[in-house]
Amino acid sequence: MKVTYKLLHQDKTTGARYGKLIFTAPDGSTQEYETPMFMPVGTQATVKTLSPEQVKATKPGIILANTYHLWLRPGENIVKKAGGLHQFMNWHSPILTDSGGYQVFSLAHNKKKDITEEGVHFKSELDGSKLFLTPEKSIEIQNKLDSDIAMSFDECPPATADERYLKNSVERTLRWAARGKAVHKNPHQSLFGIVQGGPHQNLRKWSAEQTVKLGFDGYAVGGVANDDENKDAMYQAVEYSTPYLPSNQVRYLMGVGEPVDLVECVKRGIDIFDCVSPTRLARHGNALVAGIKITTTNEPKENRINLKNAKFTEDFTPLEHDCDCYTCKNYTKAYLHHLIKCDEAFGKTLLSIHNIRFLIRLTEKMREAIKADRYADFIQDFYGPNQP
Amino acid sequence: MKVTYKLLHQDKTTGARYGKLIFTAPDGSTQEYETPMFMPVGTQATVKTLSPEQVKATKPGIILANTYHLWLRPGENIVKKAGGLHQFMNWHSPILTDSGGYQVFSLAHNKKKDITEEGVHFKSELDGSKLFLTPEKSIEIQNKLDSDIAMSFDECPPATADERYLKNSVERTLRWAARGKAVHKNPHQSLFGIVQGGPHQNLRKWSAEQTVKLGFDGYAVGGVANDDENKDAMYQAVEYSTPYLPSNQVRYLMGVGEPVDLVECVKRGIDIFDCVSPTRLARHGNALVAGIKITTTNEPKENRINLKNAKFTEDFTPLEHDCDCYTCKNYTKAYLHHLIKCDEAFGKTLLSIHNIRFLIRLTEKMREAIKADRYADFIQDFYGPNQP
Repeated sequence: MKVTYKLLHQDKTTGARYGKLIFTAPDGSTQEYETPMFMPVGTQATVKTLSPEQVKATKPGIILANTYHLWLRPGENIVKKAGGLHQFMNWHSPILTDSGGYQVFSLAHNKKKDITEEGVHFKSELDGSKLFLTPEKSIEIQNKLDSDIAMSFDECPPATADERYLKNSVERTLRWAARGKAVHKNPHQSLFGIVQGGPHQNLRKWSAEQTVKLGFDGYAVGGVANDDENKDAMYQAVEYSTPYLPSNQVRYLMGVGEPVDLVECVKRGIDIFDCVSPTRLARHGNALVAGIKITTTNEPKENRINLKNAKFTEDFTPLEHDCDCYTCKNYTKAYLHHLIKCDEAFGKTLLSIHNIRFLIRLTEKMREAIKADRYADFIQDFYGPNQP
Repeated sequence: MKVTYKLLHQDKTTGARYGKLIFTAPDGSTQEYETPMFMPVGTQATVKTLSPEQVKATKPGIILANTYHLWLRPGENIVKKAGGLHQFMNWHSPILTDSGGYQVFSLAHNKKKDITEEGVHFKSELDGSKLFLTPEKSIEIQNKLDSDIAMSFDECPPATADERYLKNSVERTLRWAARGKAVHKNPHQSLFGIVQGGPHQNLRKWSAEQTVKLGFDGYAVGGVANDDENKDAMYQAVEYSTPYLPSNQVRYLMGVGEPVDLVECVKRGIDIFDCVSPTRLARHGNALVAGIKITTTNEPKENRINLKNAKFTEDFTPLEHDCDCYTCKNYTKAYLHHLIKCDEAFGKTLLSIHNIRFLIRLTEKMREAIKADRYADFIQDFYGPNQP
């Protein structure tokens, strides 16, 4: 399905955006989803530990799948033969695929890679075999996966890269974006461009302007350091990027999903997010809960609880009293503690459901606040009385 | 809920039983389930990898939970405080708990244990701590767990035990059964007795007669070697036991769940079964599929397929075309192969669903055959043209 974005309201004080994504199927039928939006991640054509029905019950819009992983296993041709990713994984709502660029950077065997103008040579983290990913190949794979939104293949330089390197990298990413766009062939798939430029205002501006000039169905902000110790740098990179993106198109901040980041980056003009954290936290026994705990360094830290903790042994209350998720409606912390202690798979499932729904509920609250022009108050309430 | 059994029909040729279990709640409301029945196992208050809704969709009657495991974690007092096992695990259909006897025998640390008249001293397999389980303690734990059916605490001697040992063991198990019955206090819970006696006809007969004399709400056949190499011994132990059990009470064969065993033991007068095999096979990537493969030794072997096998890479068909389970209705072998190769939890979930439903569908077919007095033909069809 092709996607368009409709900006429905901007918060009067902060400019935070409330909007709608409209997906149109080949037969003309549509599916609509509101933004701000959090996308659960289904890396290997499954949102870890969940059935599609369990994911659906968290009320997401889009889910994300990883091109790099599906290219390696089972291979894009298998997915194509299965009738595309929706059919293969039994997920009949929108899917966004990333380009593989980030995974090449972060997962390649020994992280050794050779970046050329043509593409990136690297070794598989699965078996050490030699791989070569190019902008054209990434788009070709995504065309075959038949996701609803494909991402341009970009370079994701390390946070430590100097400005000269980053400038060259941004230029190359622009050439790669143009090459990818030129070969994009799936008429039922939208294609998004990605803004890079590290922490530099001039590079972010230039990357945004030039990417917009190439013309895409939506825009992502990438290469944003997801660094707990330096949230300000992340927020600044967003601030340097969004002003140069068209207001009538959607903006997606890649790989960011801590509650405080959603709140802060929506304020800075972002519409959609994705992150593995809710399911990863769950697999380690953690549940997201409301409230901000201020650490000694005055950095806001999300409140999370670890269900392994013995204090939950006899806690017969839900994770959150006001949460409407399946887990909170049916299970106590004592039961979750028991399952996590016993390493039972269902404990991970239940925490994943809660954590995903937690982030989606947060976006729902943000939408309401924006529509009512009280997003500034919402932020203040989010930080609570202990705000830094 | 207390349970009663109603024998509705016996197959004219084989004597196989079709019946009904009627569970009556304290408020007088009832739940009815047909037999032959297969009970999925939820050892630690969860059927491994499945939500209660996913279990329910396989259409089971009762599920089984393990007293030994729940005694160790989270402890019966926690479960009682949670409002009982149904409440704790969000399962609102019948639950049977075993007595812990088998686990003491099979799981105790280093399998060292000291069996006295009073009970069994052994060490926890979790932390090596000293434990002591008695008939009274087992019943007390089960009373607190508040399952619908509790089992008497029995000794499960090794298959290699000699007849003199077994005779003493059967006598002790009878004394234990009487002691357990004497302290059984939960008015909403039924209590079953267990027939032991190893491979010996005289001991089985005596154990059955004496257990029936004590008087229980139902009877189990225990200590049946679940040995692929010696199916005949298993079937014989059942044959030596069931003739001495009252026809108007239910008979439960403990820990047996291969398809061929269900077919053969229903012929010998068994009504209900339980086994960890469908979920355990699933976690190792195996799916049960119809058909018997005859091995060189002429022993019937259930057909199962391992989804890891590369031949399923491009197999876009369901596990079984005529299966009505969630997995077969929505997913292909190619997708299952992908999930199992990637060690994704959802692959184990999908195979568990299919395998449990496979066994329950088998019992449904058996019921129909018995009702139509064609159970002998059913057995012949089950073995197929390659029968031994």
